[in-house]
Amino acid sequence: MSELALIERIASRARRRPGTELGIGDDAALLSVGGTAVVTQDLLVEGVHFRRETAAPRDLGHKALAVNLSDLAAMAAEPVAALVGLCLPPGGVGDDEVDEIYAGAEALAARHGVTVAGGDTTAGPALMLAVTAVGRAASGVAPVLRSGARPGDVLCVTGALGASAAGLLLLERPALASAVTAPVAERLRAAHLRPEPRLAAGRSLARAGARAMLDLSDGLALDGLRIARASGVRAVVEPGALPVAEGVAEVAAAAGEDPGRLAAAGGEDYELLAALPPEAVEAARRAAPCPLTPVGRLEAGPPELAGVEPGGWQHDV
Amino acid sequence: MSELALIERIASRARRRPGTELGIGDDAALLSVGGTAVVTQDLLVEGVHFRRETAAPRDLGHKALAVNLSDLAAMAAEPVAALVGLCLPPGGVGDDEVDEIYAGAEALAARHGVTVAGGDTTAGPALMLAVTAVGRAASGVAPVLRSGARPGDVLCVTGALGASAAGLLLLERPALASAVTAPVAERLRAAHLRPEPRLAAGRSLARAGARAMLDLSDGLALDGLRIARASGVRAVVEPGALPVAEGVAEVAAAAGEDPGRLAAAGGEDYELLAALPPEAVEAARRAAPCPLTPVGRLEAGPPELAGVEPGGWQHDV
Repeated sequence: MSELALIERIASRARRRPGTELGIGDDAALLSVGGTAVVTQDLLVEGVHFRRETAAPRDLGHKALAVNLSDLAAMAAEPVAALVGLCLPPGGVGDDEVDEIYAGAEALAARHGVTVAGGDTTAGPALMLAVTAVGRAASGVAPVLRSGARPGDVLCVTGALGASAAGLLLLERPALASAVTAPVAERLRAAHLRPEPRLAAGRSLARAGARAMLDLSDGLALDGLRIARASGVRAVVEPGALPVAEGVAEVAAAAGEDPGRLAAAGGEDYELLAALPPEAVEAARRAAPCPLTPVGRLEAGPPELAGVEPGGWQHDV
Repeated sequence: MSELALIERIASRARRRPGTELGIGDDAALLSVGGTAVVTQDLLVEGVHFRRETAAPRDLGHKALAVNLSDLAAMAAEPVAALVGLCLPPGGVGDDEVDEIYAGAEALAARHGVTVAGGDTTAGPALMLAVTAVGRAASGVAPVLRSGARPGDVLCVTGALGASAAGLLLLERPALASAVTAPVAERLRAAHLRPEPRLAAGRSLARAGARAMLDLSDGLALDGLRIARASGVRAVVEPGALPVAEGVAEVAAAAGEDPGRLAAAGGEDYELLAALPPEAVEAARRAAPCPLTPVGRLEAGPPELAGVEPGGWQHDV
């Protein structure tokens, strides 16, 4: 398909949602952000972040958008639109697969009121998705940075950890699935392939008084260190307090892996890690739309992280 | 270099400029856009858009940002920030070259008050730059779309055409340079490697009453057709009226190419094409910070383009 035909097809399927004044089809998109735009970009590259043997095109579209929306969630922002750039190996990705990639992005976009408002398509040596998400500050909620944590704050995580890493193990070594029931295996694989950005939780945590927040893309060990460094505090994680997702222990045992490592450093869980004043934790837990678990605390001291092994998943470049 | 070290190095060199509340280093950037964000994304892929044999790393950083700023120019917007995503082949791009890529982007950013406010870096099979530019409406200037042209409007282009295509010929076939003087050859090569986004001209044209505008990335033949289609009018270009850049005719003759084809369909000139009411053209020419040349007109009729051959440079995907 020619680039023009492809763009027309993409444009015809992208539904314009509130906040997007102008979507695909001009030199740029126009987005109502009410003063401050919150913008982020993430790349997903075949052979580095995914393999087409284990990730369906629809999953790729979902995940490329989800990881960007997760960054907006970590700012407590409200997403408005996304630009989806696609690099397609000639002859390697059929028109139907391109449609599926966009369908995966569009389905997630629809659930969060996001417009796929532009992007770029080009040939290239491998399948690559470059997504930019644009959001705005939610009503009455200032963006939450990584740098606002103070000594005495409690570190809390949403949801449960290790599911994505366990799901990846199941995708790469299907025989491991006998360690868990079929529904649990499916939930773990889905956690890896189609993570759900914690947008509502991010805003809820901000309203509850979160002073610092980020999303767990590389694992608690490394991402926790990021909050410590940005805030100039020492982070102490209680390994026994980590909420480990159902089935992670069984899959880890079958694979000869340490379940604690999957939970603390497996990465790609896209849960939120927030620093809250102690007196705000209980109200935050009641208000959160998902489980919220205290996993450690922040202290005055050198900007380091203690309690779990550093070395979450880090791409060398 | 590890991803963390690379990001820290990039962050340390990116200067934060007015309009950027928060730059590199958090989950997302915060940009003051005053209501409406103007956002665009373009990908540059090795082997498709450039070859490292002919484009220096600094040129790549410049061009990847320039083509995005050119999209903002075509909306008459004021740029605020850019996200620079980089896909690096392992072992294929040294730390110094990465620095040079960012230095090229940063130098252009500095001249236009733009902050490199984020992005992503990853390994990948080829060098790829994914840039997103974010702007805001310039004071008192509504964004100019492609769709506002009316029958009777005059089509005008900024600057001169064909320089980028002639420059590419010189880069690919250095012996052709004997057809022109050394300074002219250098200007043509620079037009291809380091195009200058027409930001001031875009705003000037909007203030002068431009009803439709886009930037010439694929050539007048194809981009003119885009205005015709978006506006539902017929475009008639006068081939003899095209402003052809100095040296293009000589390089084309030496290469056995048609200079008219280079000017009309060579692509990548990143000049602006605007539709103006006839009575606004003279004032627009006087106000423009660069040459502005009438090259045709718009008529009631089917959305097609007559006068120059269609088929500007179009990537098949």
